[in-house]
Order: sequence, then structure tokens, then C-alpha cells
Amino acid sequence: MNIRFYNARILTMNQNTEILEGEVWVEGNRITHVGPVNVSGADSVKILEQPIWDREIDAKGNLIMPGFKNAHTHSAMTFLRSYADDMPLLDWLNKQIFPMEAKLQGEDIYWLSRLAILEYLTSGITANFDMYFHPEMIAKASVDSGFRTVIVSSLNDFSSSLSAMEEEYQTYNNYDELIKYSLGFHAEYTTSKKLLEGVANLSQKYKAPVFMHNSETESEVAQCVGRYGMTPTTFLDSLGMFEYGGGGYHCVWMSEEDLDIFAKKHLIAVTNPGSNTKLASGIAPISEMLKKNICLAIGTDGPASNNCLDMFREMFLVTGLGKLREKDAGAVPADEVLKMAVSGGAYAMGLTDCDCLAEGKLADLIMIDLHQPNMQPLNNIAKNLVYSGSKQNVRLTMVNGKILYENGEFSIGVDPEELYERANAIITRMREN
Amino acid sequence: MNIRFYNARILTMNQNTEILEGEVWVEGNRITHVGPVNVSGADSVKILEQPIWDREIDAKGNLIMPGFKNAHTHSAMTFLRSYADDMPLLDWLNKQIFPMEAKLQGEDIYWLSRLAILEYLTSGITANFDMYFHPEMIAKASVDSGFRTVIVSSLNDFSSSLSAMEEEYQTYNNYDELIKYSLGFHAEYTTSKKLLEGVANLSQKYKAPVFMHNSETESEVAQCVGRYGMTPTTFLDSLGMFEYGGGGYHCVWMSEEDLDIFAKKHLIAVTNPGSNTKLASGIAPISEMLKKNICLAIGTDGPASNNCLDMFREMFLVTGLGKLREKDAGAVPADEVLKMAVSGGAYAMGLTDCDCLAEGKLADLIMIDLHQPNMQPLNNIAKNLVYSGSKQNVRLTMVNGKILYENGEFSIGVDPEELYERANAIITRMREN
Repeated sequence: MNIRFYNARILTMNQNTEILEGEVWVEGNRITHVGPVNVSGADSVKILEQPIWDREIDAKGNLIMPGFKNAHTHSAMTFLRSYADDMPLLDWLNKQIFPMEAKLQGEDIYWLSRLAILEYLTSGITANFDMYFHPEMIAKASVDSGFRTVIVSSLNDFSSSLSAMEEEYQTYNNYDELIKYSLGFHAEYTTSKKLLEGVANLSQKYKAPVFMHNSETESEVAQCVGRYGMTPTTFLDSLGMFEYGGGGYHCVWMSEEDLDIFAKKHLIAVTNPGSNTKLASGIAPISEMLKKNICLAIGTDGPASNNCLDMFREMFLVTGLGKLREKDAGAVPADEVLKMAVSGGAYAMGLTDCDCLAEGKLADLIMIDLHQPNMQPLNNIAKNLVYSGSKQNVRLTMVNGKILYENGEFSIGVDPEELYERANAIITRMREN
Repeated sequence: MNIRFYNARILTMNQNTEILEGEVWVEGNRITHVGPVNVSGADSVKILEQPIWDREIDAKGNLIMPGFKNAHTHSAMTFLRSYADDMPLLDWLNKQIFPMEAKLQGEDIYWLSRLAILEYLTSGITANFDMYFHPEMIAKASVDSGFRTVIVSSLNDFSSSLSAMEEEYQTYNNYDELIKYSLGFHAEYTTSKKLLEGVANLSQKYKAPVFMHNSETESEVAQCVGRYGMTPTTFLDSLGMFEYGGGGYHCVWMSEEDLDIFAKKHLIAVTNPGSNTKLASGIAPISEMLKKNICLAIGTDGPASNNCLDMFREMFLVTGLGKLREKDAGAVPADEVLKMAVSGGAYAMGLTDCDCLAEGKLADLIMIDLHQPNMQPLNNIAKNLVYSGSKQNVRLTMVNGKILYENGEFSIGVDPEELYERANAIITRMREN
């Protein structure tokens, strides 16, 4: 499909958050033009003679921008959304989450991941960085939906193995244009030193980055210091884990030394403020990270701990909690937050081909409805996205040149009602057994 | 209009957050039935013979619940949405907000309030507690839109007067069924002791509650202690301000004694977490307030300081920030938050006739779309509303028996595009002069 968007405002996210006016052209899965069009010149062939457009969409002054990148999630945990809330973290994990996860069957993960993808699309998210079991189900769910996923291994002492991860690394980096695979492990506190050394070796063998949960809670850091005399970041670094980059999810309880390692090795801190808030884990030091030029991205975390998969909520929380932590309403400005949600996420996930709107980039983009009261007046569109934006403003979501969501309707190869029925059937089966 | 909703799930908010299945009937501006229907009995006359229904709406299993009450806002500040953000509080107020407000003309407030009402409707808000200048414009904007507003005086040393407030109190409590008026003043720090004594006298003359900004920032409290040797709450109480109830907006920096006064006098703390977050004011002690059985309600504050008017964001923040403050994921449970957003707000605003869905109550209600990925599976609908709900789920908003918003379309007597154009024209005029 070749699609022309005209009468558009355009936030390219290329270098800055300036707004252009003009057109966005998509041919196949690539962007072929962004910005004003010279109708009297060479552009006129495509526009006036309309030789190639399968569809021409009047954006009506609405905003076209790159899709958001959800840089940390556990998609298939949709089945536990609002299943167990308002509980202390350890009770929640040990008494509610782990026993239910033990009842998951492989195919469940396929359907539950597809349910999460629906929600990503409603929030303008065009790719996710997904850590969960059964990569074959995650990959199939994503490809069948037309969605882009970077799978990251959740290896730990109780699940998967080094050889399985290595095999998956090769399989899912040669599986489909929509799928990539990253080395990773669950967390220091669930993974033995020996296994971690094996991960570091694999990273060096493939010159590949590694991602993991890191310093999510204060007690997790204290336990690591108790075990090894080092914080998770310094301990993992001492094993050679970060020679080829990578990063951590959460990164709430970071020492000065931890932050310096992240800065020096260009590691990416993926912040998850919705989850950190709901589980009372704490507020990440985003302002300090920005001052140290640490690369930042944003993730929703899974739907059991958030409970929604909404980049707008996360963006507001990144800046809002940053301001509260610093007691400074000027801390963590909106422009920085937008970069984290788009280009920062793309960098974390190795998706540098869909980090902004420019000729030659992959067509992962969204249209934001500015004809809504929460976007008016148009004082500052970029700030509005962060401070006032909502799923309600997402008019269209395109991944890899295909429109998967438009005006509230999904085109993902399955009826959403079937996904809702399957998700309800899965949790009902689990409750009963 | 008489409207029958059938095939509905119903959250009555009458006593608890249990979900019923059945029907909601609206005749004129009142609810005449809520819950299961006995088709073989007397109910059958209305249903089977359909003698009275102007419209019958198949809810398709979606949720009908009372509308949210926005218990603190400055609606007309829509013109300053995303005009000045990411600034320290005092710079923001003194250099950006106050100089622009000085350029406001009366009619501006009419149009800017109507723009805010649009957004309330998209968020399922059916009434607001609005503190701003020009009550005649606020009242007209609300009535012309079919919306319910309780106006509260913003009296202070620089604006309005005791005699004006008294006249407004009489005028707007006898103006239209959609309008009420509450005594109030801006804040201790903008109002002289003499004027405050006058407000307390009026409160006692009319046996009426009084509302004001209270203890929003740490420095505000310190200044009051410096001036009077008392916190704002204890100082105002010492003037006899709370003999007939009332309450405070924000209530972030409250002493133990302040909380005890609120509890003893049944004062209402209206929390505004979005604004307190964005302006780095702090986190209100909601968990402590709940333990002391203090009445709580939720407000968005104005669109210049939030910047959106979204009860779903506020609800998540009330519980999330409460959990962070207490370092306890079990703090401030979702059910309590829902009560604050609905019946708590109704109590604060003196709208006890629209606090729940029951026979005889005013028909201020909303329909929440459960056929959306963020609401599935249906593990716990009440928790889902608080933790995962979004404007995107608001399918219909009815105020006083009239549907003002349905499937993304407004019926408020004016084209939304005209409101957007007027708001942009107002801010453009101000920037240029």
C-alpha cells in the first residue's frame, strides 16, 4: 500500500520537537517524504497525477508523529490485569502472580499477547520490548497482528537456559522483519552468578547488549550488596555484562557510581513510573540521569503491575514524578520526555530505523487528533502531548506501513471480541483449577 | 426525554462498588429504575408495551455508573493550557499566569469555560466545582451547555468583595436547576484577616460552608505560621470559618492538628494530585486522611496547572501517589478512590441528589465501554476503572437526563470547532497585546 497523508502537522522527532506543516508519504513499509511539498516541481507528478496512491488521507491539521516505543513490558500478563491489586509487593508476587503464572499454557501467551497489542495500538505504541516466556508465542502473536516486537530473554535460575537463549537469539533475529531478539535475563536476584557469567560470555561472543530488571526496589539492592558487596549495576558490570551495551528496566534505586557506569558505558535506563507508583517501589532519579546524559527510554511494564499499557500516562508520570522528586516544577521538561518515549525507546530496542519521521525510515507512525478539547488551544503541541495527551487522541496507528488501528477500529487479523472472550476464558480456567 | 438503558452492567456507587446487571431508566431528569427488571410483573408495562421511551439504548454489557464530580477547577484557564510549563511555581504564577489573566475579558470566560466543559464530558465528569472570576459567565456557559456547576467565590484582597459575594450567593442559588453557588475565598495568603472575618460572618449568617485553597505548598503554610503563629487550617478555624462545614482544595501540607480539625468538623479535603505533581507541590497525606475518616473528593485543578481535565488520570494519581508516600502498595485502595471521585465530590459540592444511581436521584450518569482492550479481561471492573480506565472508555455522558456526549459527538448547543477557534483567537489576541 502507498499512502499519502496531506494537510498534516508533523512532529518528526528528528533532532528536536519543532512542528512542520505538509505531507507524509508512505510507500510500502518506508517513508518517502516528510514535510512541505513543492507542487510545481518534481513532487507534482506524484500528487497531481496520483499515479501511486492506494489511499490519500486528509489529516485535517492533525499531528503525524513517530509511534511510541514501549521499552519494557510483559505483554501476556494481561490475564492478571486487576486480578490482584492494593497488596504489598511480596504478597502480590508470591501469593497471586507466581501461582497463576505457573498455570499458563503456551497457547495462552499467544492470545494474551495479542490482547496487549490491541491496547498498544490504542495508545499509539508501534513497538514493544517484551520479556516473557515462550518466545515462539510472542513472535507469532506479533507477526500475526502486524506489530513490531523485540523479544528479550527472561532467563533465570528457574526458567530457560543459556543454550536456549543462544538458540532463540539466532532463531528470532532471522524470523520476520517485525521481530528481533535481545539477550537478557530476569534480574540479579533470580539468577546465579554462574549463569550471569554465562550471559556475559554470550554477550561478548555476539557483541550484543544485555537487558534486565535492575534496582527496582530498595530491598533488591540491599540484598545484592549483602550477597556480593556491590549494587546490581556494579556487580553485573564487574562480570563484564556491559561490554557491548544494554541497560536496565526500572533503575529506581541507583547509586552515584551506578549512574556513572550507565553514563560511561552508554547503557539505557528504561523507566517504568506507572508500575513503580502502583507497587510503591519509588521514584527513579530521572533528573540526575538527564544531567549525566544517560540514555533514557520509557516502558509500561506489564498489565498486572500498572495496570494499563498507556504511553500517555507514563509520559506524564515521568515528568511529574521527576518534578516531585526534585521539588522543582522545571525538572524533566516535556521535550525530553517525548524523546524518551520515541527515539530513546527506539535506541534501547535497536530499532534505529524507526526513531523519527524522515525519508527512508520505516513507516511506524501515528496520527494524533488535535480537534479534541484536551488539545486546545494549540499553544504548544509537544507539551500538550506530554501534559494533556490521552489515548482518546490516537486517531491512527501504522506499523511497517500498514494501518492497524484507525478511528477506533482494529485491522489486526482477528476480531477483538474473540481476544476478550479468550482472555476471560483463560483466567476463568485458572481460577477454577 | 425518557431513556431506557438495557443489557447493562451497573455500578450504582450506593454504599459499595458491587456490580449489578440490568437496566437503568431515566424519565425527565430523574432516574426511575436501577437494576434487574421483573418482566412478568409490573415492569412489563413499561418494557413490553414501550409506552414511554423516547429512546432505548442497548448498553451491550457496558458499565453504567454515576458521573464523576470534579471538585476543584478553574475552568476558564483553558486558554493557558501548555502556554507556560516546566517552570518553577512562583515564576509561572507571577511572570506567566497573572499577567495573562489580567488581559481576560468577561466574554472570554464564557467561551473558555465552554471549552473546559467539552473536556469534562469526554472524561465522564458531570459536574464541576468552579472557582473563577465573572460568575455570570460561568453560569451562562454551564447552562447553555446543559452542564451542572457549583460556582465558588474566588474572593481575595484584589478581586470581588463581601457584598458582591453575598449578592452572588443569592443570585446563583436561584438561577437555574443546573447552578449552585458556594461561599469561598481564594486562599489565606491572598486575603486579609479582616476580609476573612467577614467571610466567616457570612458563613454563619447563611449557615453555609466555605471553601478555599488550603496548604497547597510548604512555603504557604510557613508564611501563615509566620504571620499568625498558626497553620492556615487552625487560623481559619480560629476565625469561626468552619462552623457550618466546608473544606479545602489541595490540603498537601497538613499537620496532625489540621487533620484533626478536618475530621472533627467534617470538612472535605479536595485532593488535586495532577496539579500538585506538575507544580512539584508535594503529595497529600491521603492514607492518613482515610484513617481519620476525613471526607475526601478529587479535583483536576485548572488546565493551566495540570494540564488536562481528566478524572481517570487523577484517580490513578490519588492511589499511586498515596502508595508511594506510604511506601505501601496496599495504601489508598481503588474502591476508596472511586468513592472520592463520585460520592465524595457530590458531598463536597452539596449535590447529594446525584451521588449514586438510585430511584429518584438526578440522572447524571456515564456509560463506560468495557469492549476495549484496557478493560479486559473483566477481573475486577471497579479496580479497572481506577488503574486502567481512560477517557477512551467514556462512551456516553448524561447530565440532568440529557445526553451531552455520545460516541465522540457532543450535543451542547455549539460546534466544538467554534470553541477551538475562539480559544485560539483569545490567546492570540493576548499574545499580541
